Formats: sequence, C-alpha cells, structure tokens
Amino acid sequence: MDNSELTKKKFQEIAEKIDDFILNNLSNKVLTLWKASQHYITAGGKRLRPFFIIKAYSLLAENYENIIPIAAAVEILHTFSLIHDDIMDQDPIRRNVPTVHTKWDESLAILAGDFLLSQAFVFVHHAKIPQDIKYRVLLELGRVSSKLCEGQTMDIEFEERIDVSIEEYMRMVELKTGALFEVSTFIGGLCAKASKIQLKSLEEFGNKFGISFQIIDDILGLIGDEKKFGKPIGSDLREGKKTFLLIYALEHLKNQEKRELITILSKKEKTNEDISKGIELIKNSGAIEIAKKIVKNKLDEAIAKLEIFPDSESKKELQKLALFSIQRTY
Amino acid sequence: MDNSELTKKKFQEIAEKIDDFILNNLSNKVLTLWKASQHYITAGGKRLRPFFIIKAYSLLAENYENIIPIAAAVEILHTFSLIHDDIMDQDPIRRNVPTVHTKWDESLAILAGDFLLSQAFVFVHHAKIPQDIKYRVLLELGRVSSKLCEGQTMDIEFEERIDVSIEEYMRMVELKTGALFEVSTFIGGLCAKASKIQLKSLEEFGNKFGISFQIIDDILGLIGDEKKFGKPIGSDLREGKKTFLLIYALEHLKNQEKRELITILSKKEKTNEDISKGIELIKNSGAIEIAKKIVKNKLDEAIAKLEIFPDSESKKELQKLALFSIQRTY
Repeated sequence: MDNSELTKKKFQEIAEKIDDFILNNLSNKVLTLWKASQHYITAGGKRLRPFFIIKAYSLLAENYENIIPIAAAVEILHTFSLIHDDIMDQDPIRRNVPTVHTKWDESLAILAGDFLLSQAFVFVHHAKIPQDIKYRVLLELGRVSSKLCEGQTMDIEFEERIDVSIEEYMRMVELKTGALFEVSTFIGGLCAKASKIQLKSLEEFGNKFGISFQIIDDILGLIGDEKKFGKPIGSDLREGKKTFLLIYALEHLKNQEKRELITILSKKEKTNEDISKGIELIKNSGAIEIAKKIVKNKLDEAIAKLEIFPDSESKKELQKLALFSIQRTY
Repeated sequence: MDNSELTKKKFQEIAEKIDDFILNNLSNKVLTLWKASQHYITAGGKRLRPFFIIKAYSLLAENYENIIPIAAAVEILHTFSLIHDDIMDQDPIRRNVPTVHTKWDESLAILAGDFLLSQAFVFVHHAKIPQDIKYRVLLELGRVSSKLCEGQTMDIEFEERIDVSIEEYMRMVELKTGALFEVSTFIGGLCAKASKIQLKSLEEFGNKFGISFQIIDDILGLIGDEKKFGKPIGSDLREGKKTFLLIYALEHLKNQEKRELITILSKKEKTNEDISKGIELIKNSGAIEIAKKIVKNKLDEAIAKLEIFPDSESKKELQKLALFSIQRTY
C-alpha cells in the first residue's frame, strides 16, 4: 500500500466513524424529519471537516475517538447549510441524488436543516473531554453558523450585481466557506489543549485551506466532471453566482467579450448555448490560470502554518491533503 | 396603580430590557440579514418566554439582570421558529406587519431564521452566571430547538390527514409549543440553582402553561379579533391545520355536518364563505366550550405546581399570568 492509499484508508476509517455516530444519534422521534435529515449523509460526501478536526487534534493528543461527537457535530452543521443553500439556489441535484427540497418539499428541507443545526449542539455533549472545552466548542459552533448565514446572504446579494470586487468575494468566501474549515482545525486544537500560538496557526491553516477549497470548487463547477462533482456543471453561471472566475473575467475581458458575458448574465433564462459561451469567455479571460495560482499560493501558506508542530503522521496527512487538493477532480 | 397595572408595568420593563439586548447584540456585519432578523422584534410581541425565565429565576434568586442575555436567547430562538413557520404556512401577516418572506423573500427569511437560531447560542455567553450553568443552558437550547422542528413537522404532516387524534395533537403541541415554555421556566430555575424537585415543578408549570397557550391560540385563531391577534382569522382552517377545535369537531359532529366540514377541508382553494361555514360548524360541535374547560384545568394544575415555592411577588405574578391567560383576547 503506497502513501496516498494509506491516507485514503485513514480518511475512510474516520468517515465511517463519523457516519455511524450521526446515524445512531440523530433524534428519530419523527420519521420523515429523520429521513430528510440524513439524506445527504447517506448519499456520500468526503467528511473533510471531520477529518480536519481529528487530524488537528491528533497533532497534539491521542485517542481521537473522544472527539468523534464533535467532528460529527461540525459535519451535520455543514449538512444543514447545504440543505438550506440548495433551497435558495433551487439546485436539483447534490452528491448525485435529488436535493432534499426536490425529494420531499421546501418545508421539510427547511425543517431538516434547522433540525441538523440544532442537533449539532446536542452532539457535542457526547464528547469525552472536559466540560469547559465543550462549552467553548458550543460557542464556536454558534459563531460559525452565524457566519455561514452572513456569507450566504452576501453570496445571494451578489447574484443581482455585476460589479462585485475580488475583495468583496474574499470577504464572502471567508464567511461562507473559510469559517467552517477555520473553526474545524481550531476546535481540533482546542480539544487537544493547544497553546494560543498553536491555535492561531491551526486557525490560519483552516482559513487558507477553506478559501482555496472554495476557489477550486468554483473551477470544478465550471470545467469539472459532472458525475464526479455530483451536481450540474455551469449552474453557478446559470444562477449568476459571482465566483472568483466570473469576477475576474468581468474585470479583465476586453469590451466586446465583456459585453457578451454581461448579456448572458442579464438573461433570466439562460440556454445551454449561453452557458457554453459564458464558460468559453471566462476561460478566454485567463481566470482559471490565475485562480490556480492563487490556490497554490494559499495552500503553500497553509502548509507552512503547520511547521510549528512536531513531526507526526497527522501533520504529514494534513500537509498532503492541502498539497493534493489543488489536483482534486471532484 | 392596581395589581394588574403593576404586572403590566413589570412585563413592559422586562420586555424593554430584552429588546435592548437583542437589538444591541445581534451581529450586524450584513445589513439586510440584520434587518430581516430583527423585523419581528421591532414589530411587537409580548416577550412571554423571557418573562417566564426571569420570573422563574426570581422565585429563588435576585438580580435578574444577570440572565437577560439568556432570556433574550430564548426570545430569538422563538423568533427563528416564527419566521420559518411563516414561510411553510405561507402566512402573509404576523404582529400586524408583513411576514419576513413577504417583505423580503424566502431565501432571506430562511437565512434570518437560521441566523437567529445561531445567535441564540452566542447570546448565552453574555450571561453573568457560572459557566457550568451556561453549558447546561446551551444544551437545553439545542434540545428544545430540535423539538420545535419535530413538532412543526408533525403539524405539517397533520394538514394532509383528517384522522388526527387528540392524543396525537397533544404530542405535537408538547413539542411545538409546550417545550419552549417548559424550557423557559426550567432554565430560569437552573440559573437560580433550583433543587431537582423545584426544577421538576417549574418544568411542569411551563409545560402545562404552554399547552394551554396553544389551545387558547387555536381558539383566538378561529374567533378572535384580527387586529389584536395580529394575523388573519380562520387561516388555520384555510391551511387545514389540525387544531384542537377542528379535531374535536371532526370527532363529534353528526353525519351531515361532519361531511360538510370534510368537504370544506378537502377544497384546495377555500372561499370566505367556506371559512365562515367551517367556523360555524366547529362552534356547533361544542369544541370551544370543551377547549376552554381543558385550558382552565391545565392552568389550575400549572398554578398548583408553584405551591412548593416560598411566597413572593414573582410567584404571584406567575400565578396571575396563568390565571388571566384564559381571558386573553390577543
């Protein structure tokens, strides 16, 4: 078994423990709500945030089993945001299955999201760590989920604008995507009683990784493999989402091409030809190369943040994950 | 100033402190989200749950200022559920103002609800009580908001059925309405370091009051004053909500009248005449008299639960509130 297979196996092992905890502990008093709430969990997903929590914890402590409930809490908090975002974006497919509001209806999707967010706070209680740390984790969960809402509001507001700047995009992504990765590595360190300096480094690692992750997602959403990506290619463009790529293209395309792109964006109903043309224009702007460069820099910076930790398997895995994520195809 | 004016004044005093705390502490990084989140707060409302928390606390402790942040947390958790329920029920008016999804849109209403739920957990941190109690409060908030989701799911599922039993209704109401009153008095006691027996009594007081409160709401929704009630009369019937009154009428009306009521319920679009006829049929069944009797019994039982506490102004106020709530007209 080579190194990358070993990482994959460990990834799998953690994912299974997370899923077991979620499926066994989600309150199941009301059957439909329970089914809708676990729909995205059973559909797949990478459990990336739990992996970060556990690996950050394992940089400094042993027996990660103690914090599985906290890693599971962060995963269902993430799932809450996926379910609600899918309603707002009217996305039909996620993880290759119908979205919750499509399979059931919007009401149940709203409730399933609310329920998962609520249960995240209940999950934390099961962790086998001192209560004062669990208290801090609960506060962090409240704060990060507030940030997710703020980021998603900005993301939606941007749909109606064509003058969004890269700076505004970065602020939005920090809230919508960065914050949850940031809090994952932070919480992992918190549970392992990391020092203030260590916590700061972990937080920055998570933040930089999270922003890269979103930019990679923007790229895959435009030129990825639909099957692997789990949702339709070009849907960001269809919805008018201001991705890094689109903002860059709007800022850098020359007059004629820029006008064409704006015309496509301004159409309420975009045809498949519109989407193909839009993708071509964005590609022409050089946005993808620039985006990849930014991602590479951010990931290098992220990796450097881990230097202050003693060498270990977990450190290697975190660094490898960051290093390879630029090559991910799903 | 007579007794009832004094209670009203104290009510007002607490409500103002709660509102001040909410409006000053709700994160305002994203303007639209902040506006939508505070829309129902500035529109009015009684702040009944904060009153219960503070009065339960004051049965045993002084300086209720210490727990204002917790009472405010419960109020915004309640507001979260109102905003989301209004989307699901497609209600246009609440507290005499347009509902959040009507004034803005469904996406922002989903986000405002999510945001308030998240901020509730952040609010708790500001309370001036020991951290181990705040930890328990956070867990209770997670549990109760899970229950609200379960209750609301049942309520929605009941809309499609005409064979809902009073027993099922009671289970739904315990989750959807009872639980939050129950947790309010419980948390108040918890913050005041109440004994286990005292906590049990407070919890039962809250539970019984909460169920009565919902049944009174069912009555006012059918025969109340629209202006005072703050939303359209008969909308429960229009939406097919299985209120205590409707369930009782379906169980007790004779054949011809029962068939008429079922016919009205089965119509997708109900005319104003349908609603008036429906209200008349429900009245004929004697449901309102029975409902009032049940409410009176529950409230008597609730009041009795407070007997174990030493006499005080707060005890009198809690009892009076329970006693008078059967006469409320809004």
